[in-house]
Amino acid sequence: MKGHIRLDRESGTLVLLDQRMLPVSEEYFYCRDTRDLIYAIQEMVVRGAPAVGVAAAFGCVLAARETAADFSALREGADDLDALLDALASARPTAVNLSGAVARMRKVRQDNDPESFSELIALWEAESERIYREDEAVNRRIGAFGAELLAPGDVVLTHCNAGALATAGFGTALGVIYTAREQGKDIRVIADETRPLLQGARLTAYELHRNGVPVVLACDNACALLMRKGMVQKVVTGADRIAANGDTANKIGTYGAALLAEAHGIPFYVASPLSSVDMQTPTGDDIPIEERPESEITYFGSRRISPEGVGAYNFAFDVTPARLISGIITEKGVLRAPYEQSLAGAFTDSRAPI
Amino acid sequence: MKGHIRLDRESGTLVLLDQRMLPVSEEYFYCRDTRDLIYAIQEMVVRGAPAVGVAAAFGCVLAARETAADFSALREGADDLDALLDALASARPTAVNLSGAVARMRKVRQDNDPESFSELIALWEAESERIYREDEAVNRRIGAFGAELLAPGDVVLTHCNAGALATAGFGTALGVIYTAREQGKDIRVIADETRPLLQGARLTAYELHRNGVPVVLACDNACALLMRKGMVQKVVTGADRIAANGDTANKIGTYGAALLAEAHGIPFYVASPLSSVDMQTPTGDDIPIEERPESEITYFGSRRISPEGVGAYNFAFDVTPARLISGIITEKGVLRAPYEQSLAGAFTDSRAPI
Repeated sequence: MKGHIRLDRESGTLVLLDQRMLPVSEEYFYCRDTRDLIYAIQEMVVRGAPAVGVAAAFGCVLAARETAADFSALREGADDLDALLDALASARPTAVNLSGAVARMRKVRQDNDPESFSELIALWEAESERIYREDEAVNRRIGAFGAELLAPGDVVLTHCNAGALATAGFGTALGVIYTAREQGKDIRVIADETRPLLQGARLTAYELHRNGVPVVLACDNACALLMRKGMVQKVVTGADRIAANGDTANKIGTYGAALLAEAHGIPFYVASPLSSVDMQTPTGDDIPIEERPESEITYFGSRRISPEGVGAYNFAFDVTPARLISGIITEKGVLRAPYEQSLAGAFTDSRAPI
Repeated sequence: MKGHIRLDRESGTLVLLDQRMLPVSEEYFYCRDTRDLIYAIQEMVVRGAPAVGVAAAFGCVLAARETAADFSALREGADDLDALLDALASARPTAVNLSGAVARMRKVRQDNDPESFSELIALWEAESERIYREDEAVNRRIGAFGAELLAPGDVVLTHCNAGALATAGFGTALGVIYTAREQGKDIRVIADETRPLLQGARLTAYELHRNGVPVVLACDNACALLMRKGMVQKVVTGADRIAANGDTANKIGTYGAALLAEAHGIPFYVASPLSSVDMQTPTGDDIPIEERPESEITYFGSRRISPEGVGAYNFAFDVTPARLISGIITEKGVLRAPYEQSLAGAFTDSRAPI
């Protein structure tokens, strides 16, 4: 799965494994310009907060190349470039990695003040590669810290996909599982299928199975029964945005899973890079929740599965209050409540991911 | 939707609206013998505890006609007939209405001791029609008692389908909603889509919309968020089997919805005829939970939606402990905890449904 996001420098194309087609086929989606990438992000060709952040960093390179084709001087093209970056940064609202990556690229430009497009492109190519490599290194550290929380024989329930496909190439929640298994712990996984887009069934099951991790699917609504039957020892999910108080936005259904875990006395962990923490967002109430088209629920592919004239609520994310979170597994260690302090503490050395 | 289960006496065929095809098309499935009906029950051509009970009662007539074709004397065919009834009664294990209806037909035979197949068939035709009519009358009473629990403007969340399609023709949980609206209360509904077979999206949305009740779909995993946002005032579901202590088996996901309702201070009601109460089953732990094929989850129709080699847990039902149930709405009134007493009390006059 490594290499599912790749910048082809020669053609100036960002190549994405088209996650909409998995697991049935492995097809690639070629982003030739910023607009292609915005489409890819909105349509979820690429998804997962860290993966979208990495793709957006590469997207800034696309934006610079694209503007360079229209303007000879960087100064002349500055407004156009800014407009492209603004559009890219706001392609989806909930995960903070997207706007965070674009902001980081902007800062690199500001700090280095390049004089030409070619200088800017070189700077941004280097920075986007750095973000890419950092993301994987961060995931490895998250994996190492998180693996200590898992005991041999544990069955971990996870929701959506917070694996290699959701990051540069290792995974946050699934990185914890991969690392624990590398350590010889016999960890098995129950993957919530994660309606409506079935990231659990299509992506998590796919990458775990490919990597030899025993995984069984379950419908999202089976979560409570499986917990009651003692079939789940830990819940580990990713995050799309963590507020300064620890409230965590993640794929719709995460909040319910956290409440059910609490009701059954099962620890609920969030595995997330600090790049998904937004200290500017005080609480979960301040996180914008994306609403997606009803057709994701009322249709299955091109097949209508509900009566004409009936709509659907399609909130793409929910917010799990900090009080339900047993620990946030970051590259700086496992943070514990009170999260206001532990999250702030994790940023004291540097705001950079490592 | 009335008439979705109909015995055609002339041809001796049980005609079922094929619920697998809804809402896309309205097709009928013809049961010519007991084996056809067992298939129809197992494949969920007809589903919903009371509807399956009604269909099974008519199925006894099919079994009698079928045996009559092979034996001239009722006494000679008795073993064959018994074997057919046994197979029918155990077609699915969880809902008690199925075995309950067959037991009731057997008792009618015992009490009346018919001498010939034609006498038996006449007795059973009359009794199955009585069960059919009783079910609708019982639903009307459930509706009347339940409607008092709803306030104008309430949004009711329901799970799976406990409507006309799940009964002889009015509905238990949806009967409560229909009745409240007949009384002029502006009730709206959120229907959980109910994976894997989407009874909420396909059946509940279909019949509510057809009957002019405002309904919006949501994925099962959105339940917690919708409750937290204050978008749900009551939860009302049906039941497949209620144990003597009030523990209630119903479609997978009901237990989770009940826990989430409790966490948000939302009343959770079960609407059910006393025919779904099994006083011989002491607690929920004693209710057999059907496990259905993995392919219901790993495939969507004929399309594989998860990787080859990955299985799925497909428990068809879960058990909601009595302590989570605010009230059980029956034809004898709204029963309250402690359910051992209130359920036993509901049976003191007679074990017959009304």
